Amino acid sequence: MFEVAELGQALSREEFDKRVPELRTQLLEMQRTLSQADFPVIVLVSGSDGAGKGVLVNRLNEWLDPRYLRTLAFDDKTQDERERPDYWRFWQALPQKGRIGLYIGSWYSDPIALRVDKTLNDIELDGYLAHIRIFERMLVEDGALVIKLWLHLSKDQQQLRLQQLASDPATAWRVTEKDKLHLALYDDFRSTAEHTLRQTSTAEAPWVVIESADPNYRDITVANHLLERIQQHLTLHAHSDAAQDDENSETVALIHRQKTLLGNLDMDQSLDKSTYRQKLEHWQGKLSLLARRAYEQQVSMVIVLEGWDAAGKGGLIRRIVPALDARNYQIIPIAAPTDEENAHHYLWRFWRHIPRDGRVTMYDRSWYGRVLVERVEGLASRSEWLRAYSEINDFESQLVEHGTVVVKFWLHIDADEQLKRFKERETISYKRHKITDEDYRNRERWVDYEQAVNDMVERTSTEVAPWHLIEANSKRFARIKALKILCQQLEQRLGVKGKGKE
Amino acid sequence: MFEVAELGQALSREEFDKRVPELRTQLLEMQRTLSQADFPVIVLVSGSDGAGKGVLVNRLNEWLDPRYLRTLAFDDKTQDERERPDYWRFWQALPQKGRIGLYIGSWYSDPIALRVDKTLNDIELDGYLAHIRIFERMLVEDGALVIKLWLHLSKDQQQLRLQQLASDPATAWRVTEKDKLHLALYDDFRSTAEHTLRQTSTAEAPWVVIESADPNYRDITVANHLLERIQQHLTLHAHSDAAQDDENSETVALIHRQKTLLGNLDMDQSLDKSTYRQKLEHWQGKLSLLARRAYEQQVSMVIVLEGWDAAGKGGLIRRIVPALDARNYQIIPIAAPTDEENAHHYLWRFWRHIPRDGRVTMYDRSWYGRVLVERVEGLASRSEWLRAYSEINDFESQLVEHGTVVVKFWLHIDADEQLKRFKERETISYKRHKITDEDYRNRERWVDYEQAVNDMVERTSTEVAPWHLIEANSKRFARIKALKILCQQLEQRLGVKGKGKE
Repeated sequence: MFEVAELGQALSREEFDKRVPELRTQLLEMQRTLSQADFPVIVLVSGSDGAGKGVLVNRLNEWLDPRYLRTLAFDDKTQDERERPDYWRFWQALPQKGRIGLYIGSWYSDPIALRVDKTLNDIELDGYLAHIRIFERMLVEDGALVIKLWLHLSKDQQQLRLQQLASDPATAWRVTEKDKLHLALYDDFRSTAEHTLRQTSTAEAPWVVIESADPNYRDITVANHLLERIQQHLTLHAHSDAAQDDENSETVALIHRQKTLLGNLDMDQSLDKSTYRQKLEHWQGKLSLLARRAYEQQVSMVIVLEGWDAAGKGGLIRRIVPALDARNYQIIPIAAPTDEENAHHYLWRFWRHIPRDGRVTMYDRSWYGRVLVERVEGLASRSEWLRAYSEINDFESQLVEHGTVVVKFWLHIDADEQLKRFKERETISYKRHKITDEDYRNRERWVDYEQAVNDMVERTSTEVAPWHLIEANSKRFARIKALKILCQQLEQRLGVKGKGKE
Repeated sequence: MFEVAELGQALSREEFDKRVPELRTQLLEMQRTLSQADFPVIVLVSGSDGAGKGVLVNRLNEWLDPRYLRTLAFDDKTQDERERPDYWRFWQALPQKGRIGLYIGSWYSDPIALRVDKTLNDIELDGYLAHIRIFERMLVEDGALVIKLWLHLSKDQQQLRLQQLASDPATAWRVTEKDKLHLALYDDFRSTAEHTLRQTSTAEAPWVVIESADPNYRDITVANHLLERIQQHLTLHAHSDAAQDDENSETVALIHRQKTLLGNLDMDQSLDKSTYRQKLEHWQGKLSLLARRAYEQQVSMVIVLEGWDAAGKGGLIRRIVPALDARNYQIIPIAAPTDEENAHHYLWRFWRHIPRDGRVTMYDRSWYGRVLVERVEGLASRSEWLRAYSEINDFESQLVEHGTVVVKFWLHIDADEQLKRFKERETISYKRHKITDEDYRNRERWVDYEQAVNDMVERTSTEVAPWHLIEANSKRFARIKALKILCQQLEQRLGVKGKGKE
């Protein structure tokens, strides 16, 4: 596929100078329209060493309005980046809606480099590429325009280019040992790149190979391409509507089951007070030791707390907290998003709080809001919440692959118990603020929520991150069961054999 | 001063249990009011080892509503933190308005530890403490409530406490080598702490020493103290008004000078085209080499671009950019703040983008907006912009102390030249978007802006970060002068002797 970019395309200085003013005008006008649009543009600048990625990006910084442009270079990972899943740094860097993000180096750099130096074999490389396809698809489905540029040089051109750079003292530094190594490995690099581009040139995010031997041709071609693609996307986006979007969405009907997992729970389980006290002490002590060990082994943990209103999420958090070191955990209550959060993919605000190695994040409500409240209240379109299931599964599998322990609780109570608790709350001074008219309104949609919960459990209870359904009509029973599960999950991850009696 | 916290204060379990429900109610009610308030609460939890900082914070996490609470523990710096000025991590962690931030460890931890282990002498310690006073004063003047808690144990109590922890397998891990060392150094620690507390117990942010041998007494006392201080601050804040605030502000009149620095500039300097081309190539080449060396030596640079509308900031940026590696710089155009930015101190959004070691950040307009547009347009109160001068000076001196090269440009044109450029812009297609009615409106306040610029230069041109006034009626002259200054500043910092002819 690279042959098309070895045709000797070039542009004279005169022609270049003639074209630039009009092109800049168009780029700036396009950016002004884009700044009001409801999607971001992500531009990956990849390609051969010496093909001029940096020079091109400098030029685009000259031509475009920097207010709506962000350039990001991904180099070797920093410590903060190493202590989170691979994609954390890419998530942090995603541009807001209305902006263009220029990426030098991207999620492609590592897989290609690791394959060329033989750290990965073909099958492992394809595993990386599968992740990439899922990630890019998610961005595109959220509205993003993903433009992937591959700046190509032939072997001769690359050699020539490196020689030119090396012979001029002003540019010799640009030639790194890595570059020289890559030149020696040109054929491997080329075939790996070709394989990678083929595997990831999807309908929604195709690769574009740019002949890069002549800088004038390269820069004008890229700028024109950006202009066309963004203008096209602006036009398409203006005409799309949510209804049509929904018609095209997954057509598989969600099944209304007679028997559901939630329906199968034995809601009468309970614990007497003295047994509870004794078990609480036991499991908190155990959790404390395990959490300490997880910190020592730099294992992080994500705890997701979902459940009906008044199911006891806060009470459970208060029973988990004493077993943890205050220095190592954070509780993230999920409320309305800020405007920065709203200007990104909905998963962005959860990625923000992913714990460093050895730390714990407790999400009090979570990304599952997408398939629960946002679905039921119509805040997300049908296609949005339908695709969220697989997006969430991929997100959680990335956490687990990084080594994070992911524990998801659904605290389940029945409608009668909820009503009883609402009434109780109104009589306890420091709980009164917890109960609002909205809580009563939500009760009216109990059946819809129940359907949403059943679908959620069915579709997102994966092997790597299963749901733990907690019968919570008895708070005591629920807390002990949850603490015990936390301990078991940690034990499993840490390779500790559980010894404690219950 | 610690003797007051060695009185044997204690609270029985019964008394504790009796008081908690009422206290929790009050805390939650207070937080609901606070959540609507226009200031953040910053609570530092410091003190002796074994005094229960972590346990206290866990308890506060139980009692308070986590939606408006954020706990942060400052441990050894991560790589990302080491590559920025010391206070960068504290800035990142500041709570939003309406929230409480609980800090375990803070800007006090390092100075005290470094003095106890004799890395610092008394004079150096006082230097650290002077920074702290400036920092806290700035937070308080911005409206923040800063509560500083010192949990105290006597030497005997601390020894006893560490023994207790060490003898129980469930808690033995809490006793670190650092703790044991600190016990051995108890007397040094105590006297350093006492000195530190005295030096930093200011009217606006006093220390409160809490007797901490009895956990029940400690927790109830702290919770009551938080309650009272926050309620008091809410009341005071509701009754303060900006006018009164301004009356109390600095009374020194700003002097209207006959002769000003700006007035003294020779605005007729210019360069012919061929000299310009030659010098541009020379200085861009030089800058390129120096920037490369700065990267190698991991020296970061902050470039501040201020100037009249149409003075040529964008054009200058486009002449700097080709000398830099696109991987290493970012351009931060300062536009309207986001809501997250609005919910913090005005310097917060600039701290966000402080470059890592070896990197460059160019601010296209900057924190100086506070004393320019915000002053002239009345967006900041008189006391706010008056105190901004010293806040900015301290901010920049922190950058320089970290090793960052700070270069500040004021691009100066006269009113006639500006009008000429406005007219020109209207005729060039890709510049037309740059000119709006507002630009013409701003011209009408030229004299006010001129006064503001003169005051700014007078008050913020410090030895560590002087202003560079650029005569910019000639764009060519301005660009060459600015590039030359960048080179000189880098040479000075890198210890390179400038060899190039002009």
